[in-house]
Amino acid sequence: MKRTLYEADHEAFRESVREFVTRTIEPAEEKMIEQRFVDRDSWLEAGRNGFLGLEVPEEYGGSEAGDYRFNAIFNEELSRSSAAIASAFSIQFDIVAPYLVKLTTEEQRQRWLPKFCAGELITAIAMTEPSGGSDLAALKTTAVKDGDDYVINGSKTFITNGTQADLIVVATRTSPEKKARGITLFAVEATDEGFSRGRKLDKVGQPEADTAELFFEDLRVPSSRMIGELDGGFIHMMQLLPQERISGAVQNIAHARRNLEDTLQYVQERKAFGQQIGSLQYNKFLLAELVTKLDVAQAFIDNCVVAHTHGELSAIDAAKAKWWSSQVQNEILDHCVQLYGGYGFMNEYRVARAWKDARVTKIWAGSNEIMKELIGRDLGL
Amino acid sequence: MKRTLYEADHEAFRESVREFVTRTIEPAEEKMIEQRFVDRDSWLEAGRNGFLGLEVPEEYGGSEAGDYRFNAIFNEELSRSSAAIASAFSIQFDIVAPYLVKLTTEEQRQRWLPKFCAGELITAIAMTEPSGGSDLAALKTTAVKDGDDYVINGSKTFITNGTQADLIVVATRTSPEKKARGITLFAVEATDEGFSRGRKLDKVGQPEADTAELFFEDLRVPSSRMIGELDGGFIHMMQLLPQERISGAVQNIAHARRNLEDTLQYVQERKAFGQQIGSLQYNKFLLAELVTKLDVAQAFIDNCVVAHTHGELSAIDAAKAKWWSSQVQNEILDHCVQLYGGYGFMNEYRVARAWKDARVTKIWAGSNEIMKELIGRDLGL
Amino acid sequence: MKRTLYEADHEAFRESVREFVTRTIEPAEEKMIEQRFVDRDSWLEAGRNGFLGLEVPEEYGGSEAGDYRFNAIFNEELSRSSAAIASAFSIQFDIVAPYLVKLTTEEQRQRWLPKFCAGELITAIAMTEPSGGSDLAALKTTAVKDGDDYVINGSKTFITNGTQADLIVVATRTSPEKKARGITLFAVEATDEGFSRGRKLDKVGQPEADTAELFFEDLRVPSSRMIGELDGGFIHMMQLLPQERISGAVQNIAHARRNLEDTLQYVQERKAFGQQIGSLQYNKFLLAELVTKLDVAQAFIDNCVVAHTHGELSAIDAAKAKWWSSQVQNEILDHCVQLYGGYGFMNEYRVARAWKDARVTKIWAGSNEIMKELIGRDLGL
Amino acid sequence: MKRTLYEADHEAFRESVREFVTRTIEPAEEKMIEQRFVDRDSWLEAGRNGFLGLEVPEEYGGSEAGDYRFNAIFNEELSRSSAAIASAFSIQFDIVAPYLVKLTTEEQRQRWLPKFCAGELITAIAMTEPSGGSDLAALKTTAVKDGDDYVINGSKTFITNGTQADLIVVATRTSPEKKARGITLFAVEATDEGFSRGRKLDKVGQPEADTAELFFEDLRVPSSRMIGELDGGFIHMMQLLPQERISGAVQNIAHARRNLEDTLQYVQERKAFGQQIGSLQYNKFLLAELVTKLDVAQAFIDNCVVAHTHGELSAIDAAKAKWWSSQVQNEILDHCVQLYGGYGFMNEYRVARAWKDARVTKIWAGSNEIMKELIGRDLGL
Repeated sequence: MKRTLYEADHEAFRESVREFVTRTIEPAEEKMIEQRFVDRDSWLEAGRNGFLGLEVPEEYGGSEAGDYRFNAIFNEELSRSSAAIASAFSIQFDIVAPYLVKLTTEEQRQRWLPKFCAGELITAIAMTEPSGGSDLAALKTTAVKDGDDYVINGSKTFITNGTQADLIVVATRTSPEKKARGITLFAVEATDEGFSRGRKLDKVGQPEADTAELFFEDLRVPSSRMIGELDGGFIHMMQLLPQERISGAVQNIAHARRNLEDTLQYVQERKAFGQQIGSLQYNKFLLAELVTKLDVAQAFIDNCVVAHTHGELSAIDAAKAKWWSSQVQNEILDHCVQLYGGYGFMNEYRVARAWKDARVTKIWAGSNEIMKELIGRDLGL
Repeated sequence: MKRTLYEADHEAFRESVREFVTRTIEPAEEKMIEQRFVDRDSWLEAGRNGFLGLEVPEEYGGSEAGDYRFNAIFNEELSRSSAAIASAFSIQFDIVAPYLVKLTTEEQRQRWLPKFCAGELITAIAMTEPSGGSDLAALKTTAVKDGDDYVINGSKTFITNGTQADLIVVATRTSPEKKARGITLFAVEATDEGFSRGRKLDKVGQPEADTAELFFEDLRVPSSRMIGELDGGFIHMMQLLPQERISGAVQNIAHARRNLEDTLQYVQERKAFGQQIGSLQYNKFLLAELVTKLDVAQAFIDNCVVAHTHGELSAIDAAKAKWWSSQVQNEILDHCVQLYGGYGFMNEYRVARAWKDARVTKIWAGSNEIMKELIGRDLGL
Repeated sequence: MKRTLYEADHEAFRESVREFVTRTIEPAEEKMIEQRFVDRDSWLEAGRNGFLGLEVPEEYGGSEAGDYRFNAIFNEELSRSSAAIASAFSIQFDIVAPYLVKLTTEEQRQRWLPKFCAGELITAIAMTEPSGGSDLAALKTTAVKDGDDYVINGSKTFITNGTQADLIVVATRTSPEKKARGITLFAVEATDEGFSRGRKLDKVGQPEADTAELFFEDLRVPSSRMIGELDGGFIHMMQLLPQERISGAVQNIAHARRNLEDTLQYVQERKAFGQQIGSLQYNKFLLAELVTKLDVAQAFIDNCVVAHTHGELSAIDAAKAKWWSSQVQNEILDHCVQLYGGYGFMNEYRVARAWKDARVTKIWAGSNEIMKELIGRDLGL
Repeated sequence: MKRTLYEADHEAFRESVREFVTRTIEPAEEKMIEQRFVDRDSWLEAGRNGFLGLEVPEEYGGSEAGDYRFNAIFNEELSRSSAAIASAFSIQFDIVAPYLVKLTTEEQRQRWLPKFCAGELITAIAMTEPSGGSDLAALKTTAVKDGDDYVINGSKTFITNGTQADLIVVATRTSPEKKARGITLFAVEATDEGFSRGRKLDKVGQPEADTAELFFEDLRVPSSRMIGELDGGFIHMMQLLPQERISGAVQNIAHARRNLEDTLQYVQERKAFGQQIGSLQYNKFLLAELVTKLDVAQAFIDNCVVAHTHGELSAIDAAKAKWWSSQVQNEILDHCVQLYGGYGFMNEYRVARAWKDARVTKIWAGSNEIMKELIGRDLGL
């Protein structure tokens, strides 16, 4: 199915991303896998290319596109190369950006955004806590008002960019009795006293992106660090989550497609029992099924991208896109591994690493179970 | 996900179809189930509404829309009411129509199309044979030239509208040595000597549509009954099959959606263990999954409808649409039955009949296995 | 995998059942499908063969085997022929028998069992109600003590043998405030005043077995009709349910096996694209998968049969056997239909009828969802 | 379902294995993961316990049990601790042992077996080649007769114990024209000139077991190194493969069970949304499904173990056991990871490592596709 959502501008942008991937990302990938974080040079080069400021007005150093499809393309091309690097950058340009652009004061924007766009200020967003998982109503990290300041105590976990981040948007509880409606966001800077990082988490996949626990111990921030409204954090997050989810979905499908393309090539080259293994009917039908599932999912995700470009993507459609794309991605990757045979179990093969990388997409950004809960509720159930 | 393919004209047309369904089809449905064919009055009323001539130029009595989306809407609304009646009418207005419009001579068009549009001439198309199933290369029905005539011998089976049809487009073998490339189409009229019908087949589902075996014994037709080119039948069929498949897909999804809507209502009304059964988490998540699968499939099918409206639907995308929609439809119906509990096994419930009706969509119009073969081949496998 | 649970005696018994099936059941099957109930002659002949009294002591006319494996064999051989007839007989010899043997007084046994064994007294068991489905705690049919009698009011639905039964074991509520612990069983005779039957239900499958709604209106029975303890009905049913479930599982697997055997033969005979369709690799692997699933399920069911023969089958293992066997059965039947192509949708083919017959096994005898609830609870969840 | 295959002797043996696992294996596991091979001390301690000589007569230092169930127990207990260590030891005591016991000369047995039993001689078996995967007919490694010697050239890959092995049973081609029937086995010793090892392969999972490529370059062995008959290698391997496959199946199920047990405990401790996550109905039903699948598979595998103990396990049943157990194992592990949420993606959690470890069982020892081919062929397809 020919995709119809992108125009000439977008495809030109895609070319520039591809060049970035080829020149900057791929040569550094082995090193990033080894060191387990995205190197600063890649961040800076992404910044120089204007990729990190896609949602940031030009006056703050951004390259504001005003068109989510550019985000989508950046996500697609990164994911084709590395799911982890896509996820690390996406946190910045896709997920944190709207918080810093839409919910901030002029002073905040001037303080953070120029370096943010340049790749000099790496950011993260910290919602999940060790005890609570996806349950925001149970958030335990507190921010207690003390004079003009807030004092933050608590910890967060599974934070992408966690060991590298210079600024972290942290969800805290400001009104204990108000459950989800008592949450406020603060920007914590890595130099703040009382901030510390746990060890870099040793993940099953996505080694290029660092993930960490973060600790806040009597960490004092002035009110000017508040992002958005007091007690408005839950609403802010709910409003911005659809973008996180559709971006995740875009990544999932692009990642699956790249690996399915590679596998299709492999099964045409690899021979067994006197013929190319892709032409054994069982494999042939299987690949027909996988290509169908991918193209069908793509149609839905593309519609979501268009809707989101027009500001019309519902939280429910984003939830559908998120869970289904991750399901399809994981199914495809599992079959791809199988088609590679023993080589599919060897880390030197991209497909093997991709299989591990993909596993987390069913868990993060609201687990697939949470997505089903949201969709079910929307059905009146 | 809001559907974006239809415009005001289409929705107005949908209203008129709904009225037809409500006034004409639904009151006759029980009778049609009983007698096991679509009654002539419904055909005539469809004709009077201009529904049967959507692809026929006005000069031949048609209401040529020149826009496949009207076909899609007629299919959708019929399928919501009855998969079988949709299939019976679709054979006429959707599948046979292009053969009689695009491949015919002026004389042929004048002879058949006015009555065709009026619902006075019911048609069928006969490809499948008892021994061969979906394998056109193995076609055994022969048409042997004898002077200016052709003499047809053979039999066909699983022919929708078979016991009612006044005219049947029959695929015959004219060049035995040329396999698929030796097939020619002829219009056989029910009054032709040598034509006979077997018994009405007793199917698992879709009783409203009659299905039959057809026999041709030394049936002599003049050359003027040839539809399209001599030995060109295979190519003609290949060119027109995508429309059959996308129409099937449109029906499958609309049929599933209607039954899923009914089920969603049922599970909100039905109580067990002190609560509505739809709110039991297992059911709630299941329904979230089904709605997601349906909406995702719909996005792809809608894209296919748009592509086909522009004459750009590939045979491969039609094949993907066909098999995947039937897969999703059958999965959904099976779960719907389960959610109805014992009532789902009672024929008086629409969902029970719909479950049986749906089963054939994985088999007909090229079985899902054939679709996978086509898609796999297109992948170079 | 060679089955090891049966010995020479059992296999001799199997031979006699096969003869009964061949001589008595199969010649009457078409008629039973048409009339939608098991004919009395078959009941009487089963009685003459001693099949109905497998659990009844000889003094009451039974052929007490004292070995559940004979039940299993009777179930297997009946199911190979007809799932519905197996189910109709199983209600009598397998499910109602223990109620009438174990929970009755001497007087009751003498009154009912001789005719029961002879096939002259057909029985049913009535738990399910229109509003309540599987939820026994919500039982609404009441039995109110009035002097020495009980007066029964209410209705039951989905009752196998419902239109034929001469005696029905009915679950009633005697202590409204005690939920599941306030249920008592009574034997209602068809001649009792106040007893009436609704229409024979028109089911998706299993037409040979009749299913009906039953009504009790001020139906007065003496205390001597009570089966088991006052308010002890729930415990009685819980104790006897494992046998119903393991018998269902035995039937499911035998039914699937018969149809899979037929299909294996069909795919070796049927040719397409120049070869037997069973040898197309996709079909070959699929059949390998189905045979594996069946054999694996059989191993578990056979272990359950052995355990039950020793009186050691747990309710949880019976629940596992029930839901899993019905899942495997339905998967297998669905694939068998697909392998038959268009013929799989024709009622004249056994596989088509079997597909419809199988659907209810995921619903009845405690739906598969109820089974998962029981198993989950047993896990401490 | 209570398992019935083991007796008191077996359970006593299980205790001794557990002690070995607790005292020797578990304390060394981190180190083995790090160094990526099973340390020599563990081999020696296994030898001292008599575990490596379960199939070796006492005269050669073995503890010949003459009862495969002891192998099964050793496999079960090792797999509960580490799939990789089970696999490394299993190569020795389960897979290579019969080659060295049944196909050898007295001289060979005396040369190798005492050290083999002591854990001083680690062994491997080398069939798979880089180009050929599972296709033995395409074997390229040659052994050419030269005087009394054979000269071996070629390479093997994916060889478990490959970097550690002191002796490797190598499948070579001795008769090029005879396809599968021209294969001969030789024992290559690590000290043989011309033998070299490639790098330790970097696998997705099972790091504790080393896997390597092996190279044979003009490697000269005397005839006395031949294992079994000249050109008899294929038959030897076919005869001994069922044990490899049933042992694999035993490991798969034990490994899945351990992780499912851990997960059941985790979901009872972990809370979200105010309750233990295992009691959320979706999870509860899911766990009920997984436990059912596991118990059902166990019943079949146990039957296979009993059959193999009696020398009656067919190659087909072994194939069914192998593929189905690996399928069930992988399904269970994937769901377990999901139930752990983000922690399931962290290598410090056993379930995360187990998920990666399990993936290879669908690929190795004859991929699941090869198993389906064997089973399909046995069906006459």
